[in-house]
Amino acid sequence: MRRTSFNDAICPIARTSDLIGDGWSPLIMREACSGTRRFEDFQSNLSIPRATLTTRLDGLVEAGLLRRERYQDQSSREHYRLTQQGREFYSVLAAMWRFGSDWLFDGDLQVELTDRETGEPVQPVVVDAHTGRPIDVRKIAVAVVPGRR
Amino acid sequence: MRRTSFNDAICPIARTSDLIGDGWSPLIMREACSGTRRFEDFQSNLSIPRATLTTRLDGLVEAGLLRRERYQDQSSREHYRLTQQGREFYSVLAAMWRFGSDWLFDGDLQVELTDRETGEPVQPVVVDAHTGRPIDVRKIAVAVVPGRR
Repeated sequence: MRRTSFNDAICPIARTSDLIGDGWSPLIMREACSGTRRFEDFQSNLSIPRATLTTRLDGLVEAGLLRRERYQDQSSREHYRLTQQGREFYSVLAAMWRFGSDWLFDGDLQVELTDRETGEPVQPVVVDAHTGRPIDVRKIAVAVVPGRR
Repeated sequence: MRRTSFNDAICPIARTSDLIGDGWSPLIMREACSGTRRFEDFQSNLSIPRATLTTRLDGLVEAGLLRRERYQDQSSREHYRLTQQGREFYSVLAAMWRFGSDWLFDGDLQVELTDRETGEPVQPVVVDAHTGRPIDVRKIAVAVVPGRR
């Protein structure tokens, strides 16, 4: 990527990085993508402090990745559901999955992604939508688009 | 993704999330991917506190995404270079770029990725390497691989 100096305010990486914050949010989103909906289930699956979970869920709702639903049963408990934006955030998690599985395990990777219909393994790779070729950082430049706002 | 309860210790997303920590690390990696090498340049480009930058750079070197090089010129200043692992981390940044550009700008996106040889726009998308189809969270299951270690 060619060196380009631009303010974080115009950088999509910076904004997404702000969103995923202190490291809990990707894990909360991972749980949501796995079907977790109830506060208590997020809490027990992640062993996350309740106050932290409350703050992070509020942030993800405010950001538009989750929406809050209150069920009118005896409990009136709130559920957290993925929005379309939340579903698309899975791309970030899938790229993290691929990187982590390639580099952060020493032959001890015990999980894999599969297609739930065919059962075939799924291997995420980040490609250019126009060419279908994997993204190579050495061939990427960042261009500031003049006049666009 | 089907609900699967598994320990964070075996999850590639959790390990990568630990790596990117408090939100500074993706931005430091973004700078490194843009050609930034000197401590002072990271510091001024990101307006990051020096102590934080030192800690984060040390962590990224220890994790294997950057390597430290000491130049034997007058300054003996240290440079930080991308390793192969660091270059492959760009996939995570590219997925973040795509998500951020799709969802976190209200028509005011002022930057784009281009191919530095052809000048054509590059649009990152996360696909399954086996089928070439975009990853859809609703069709993904996580399987714990029995017996593998």
